[in-house]
Amino acid sequence: MSDHLDEAGIVLDPEATPESMAERLAGLHPADIAAALERLDAETLVRVLRELDTETAADVLTDLDEHSLAEILDILEAPDIADMASELESDDATDVIGTLTPPKQSVVLSRLEEDDRRAVEDLLQYTDESAGGIMAAELVYVNQNASIDEAIALIREAADEIEEIHNVYVTDRDRRLRGVLSIRALVLARRGARVADIMQPDVVTVSTEMDQEDVAEVFRKYDLVVIPVVDPEGTLVGRITVDDIIDVIHEEAEEDISIMAGTREEELHEDSALRVSRIRLPWLVIGALGGLGSATVMSHYRFSLEKVLALAFFVPIITAMGGNVGLQTSTIIVRGMRPERGLGGETVSRLLKEWRVAITNAVILGGAICLAVGLWFKDWGLAFVVGGSLAAVILVAATLGTVVPFALRRAGVDPAVAQGPFVTTLNDIIGIMVYLGLASAFIDRLG
Amino acid sequence: MSDHLDEAGIVLDPEATPESMAERLAGLHPADIAAALERLDAETLVRVLRELDTETAADVLTDLDEHSLAEILDILEAPDIADMASELESDDATDVIGTLTPPKQSVVLSRLEEDDRRAVEDLLQYTDESAGGIMAAELVYVNQNASIDEAIALIREAADEIEEIHNVYVTDRDRRLRGVLSIRALVLARRGARVADIMQPDVVTVSTEMDQEDVAEVFRKYDLVVIPVVDPEGTLVGRITVDDIIDVIHEEAEEDISIMAGTREEELHEDSALRVSRIRLPWLVIGALGGLGSATVMSHYRFSLEKVLALAFFVPIITAMGGNVGLQTSTIIVRGMRPERGLGGETVSRLLKEWRVAITNAVILGGAICLAVGLWFKDWGLAFVVGGSLAAVILVAATLGTVVPFALRRAGVDPAVAQGPFVTTLNDIIGIMVYLGLASAFIDRLG
Repeated sequence: MSDHLDEAGIVLDPEATPESMAERLAGLHPADIAAALERLDAETLVRVLRELDTETAADVLTDLDEHSLAEILDILEAPDIADMASELESDDATDVIGTLTPPKQSVVLSRLEEDDRRAVEDLLQYTDESAGGIMAAELVYVNQNASIDEAIALIREAADEIEEIHNVYVTDRDRRLRGVLSIRALVLARRGARVADIMQPDVVTVSTEMDQEDVAEVFRKYDLVVIPVVDPEGTLVGRITVDDIIDVIHEEAEEDISIMAGTREEELHEDSALRVSRIRLPWLVIGALGGLGSATVMSHYRFSLEKVLALAFFVPIITAMGGNVGLQTSTIIVRGMRPERGLGGETVSRLLKEWRVAITNAVILGGAICLAVGLWFKDWGLAFVVGGSLAAVILVAATLGTVVPFALRRAGVDPAVAQGPFVTTLNDIIGIMVYLGLASAFIDRLG
Repeated sequence: MSDHLDEAGIVLDPEATPESMAERLAGLHPADIAAALERLDAETLVRVLRELDTETAADVLTDLDEHSLAEILDILEAPDIADMASELESDDATDVIGTLTPPKQSVVLSRLEEDDRRAVEDLLQYTDESAGGIMAAELVYVNQNASIDEAIALIREAADEIEEIHNVYVTDRDRRLRGVLSIRALVLARRGARVADIMQPDVVTVSTEMDQEDVAEVFRKYDLVVIPVVDPEGTLVGRITVDDIIDVIHEEAEEDISIMAGTREEELHEDSALRVSRIRLPWLVIGALGGLGSATVMSHYRFSLEKVLALAFFVPIITAMGGNVGLQTSTIIVRGMRPERGLGGETVSRLLKEWRVAITNAVILGGAICLAVGLWFKDWGLAFVVGGSLAAVILVAATLGTVVPFALRRAGVDPAVAQGPFVTTLNDIIGIMVYLGLASAFIDRLG
């Protein structure tokens, strides 16, 4: 019995021979081997991988991070890849084969056994982020008229090929799903019983086209470990296991955070400053263009600023507040759109709620800033303009933060984009327009 | 067989009687019942819950969102809560009982059966976010000297009490974990074999004190469905199932996004604008204080601004760029700190990498903005100051974005806080200081 490895894991000596490294790793869990190998350069990684037995090497392949996997698939020859892919379940084999270049892909496919090849070719046709794209084709299914002993015999047959069997699916002769039988029910069943007697007829299923994020939500809602996937005719075509769903949930969370932060986690594997820069620059350019837009707006109000220079001092508070309120609002709106919330379509009711919140915040913050500026500058005209603009900017930012996500969704764009730099930049420009516009209207009373 | 319910789910007529609502819901999955009930007010929800059978009502309880659960536990009487808690597994019972007020908690506990009460009291002692805090006490374990038939008999005994049994744990006579037996291995085992012959002796375990986020990482790494929890002496004390881990991953992702956005998802269940405002205001106040700080800085440079008003036009681009670069950097640093990355301690090497990226971005963006301002204002002194400051601000923001998370972690604070408004606000102020400081040094050449 062993506790899981500590955070640092195994550290290999990069000077050692591939044979001695492989020896050191033998017997470890493939995930631990992968973690140790990821720290090596791709050439060495491949050499060590070749020293491992094919089954272990194949499992290690599925546990490598995307970056290392892509690198070593580039180096490995098609026959080696085919050998490893044959050891994998169809979903993992498809993930590996799907990342190859088309010519390499067809060589690898041609070297697989007929059954495996057909399974992978089928799975390659589904969109990456759909239920079909993450399912495995390996299934244990049994006719509804079979006996318990026949079901157990099927499990015995499949045991080599399928890593984890949680359920046996019960189908009619057209392979349409009729029920499910947990392994536990099989253990406890009286020998001689029939499958139809002990099966559970209510099965939660998903269809091949369902988005992986929605599949994850089904898992979460019903506390599932595995789900059968059916095609539009109700035929059982595959299954999705919870370990893949955990990866989906991680990916989706990373994606949300990437959009908000304007960067991507892939960076962590990237040593070239130029390539990291290429990931981050687009977001910064949006900010820079917005900044030039703000400068243009301010140059239009040059006269007001010349007359009351103090107006310039409060530009940062106006833009900061617009940015923060916009982000708070768009985040809550986007989160509320999640399928599990069922708060989708009611743009108007969400807007009314956001306005109530915005008015509360506008009164409190606008009032406080008005007071602070008045006491500081002893200029209550200026104080009123700054406080009033701040209140107006909060309302505008809340409106944009609500409307933009709904507009994006209607346009078929991921509404999460509203949490990125677009809304913030827009709020900067509009905020400055509101602020200096209001100030100009009162300009004679200021200064 | 039924497909999972569509997004909208069941919508109950709030005018209907509790009896007719309960009738409408009978036979549905508890998660679907919970989703329908969450839309009702708490009083009605409790009335419908009382019409359901106790087992279903108990399951529904565990599927309600936190907000609805808290509301109805307030209304429900202790005896009703005790009845439902008796139907739940120990981890779910503990979650329910743990949210009660101390007096109500002791009444509910006193009404549980001896065994259940002791299990819940044990579990209540663990920190909420530790392995002990999320584990269930119900286990099937068998002595290493037992036969397969004895193991199957134990499963049969436990089947009523434990919803999902994936594994049987094998222990010595001191209940120390020696191995694990999958239900599948039991199905396939030859009758008459001994547990020790077919068990898997290598078991991944976690200790009761491990943080739930690290437990989730162990599940993800090893593709687990369930994990045994051991105390410091190696005694088997509980198990954690993957459905609870999915909730943990969701919670942690929500937490990260909440920190970045300055708001919390609880808002979605909150109708009072004042209470939503109370969640959001603290973050806005930080921004407002930062804004006043920026104003103070600018008032110190009043003379420079009076002389070259155009300097004011570029304040928004300076603050926007500092904010964006700071957020990109802190996000990547915080993500890289995750235990699974093993990129923890090397502050200096991370800083060097961030500087290389920052210098690249500073040269590109600073150069581009210098060119844009020069062509626009035909004032190359101004252009040089704006472009140079922008480059300097990018370097400063990257430095803060790297150093602050490490400093926070050393101070025992969640480094994710660096992705919140603190660093952005700090960057605003420092950015303006750098910009106007630089401009003042060159002031005679400007204008």
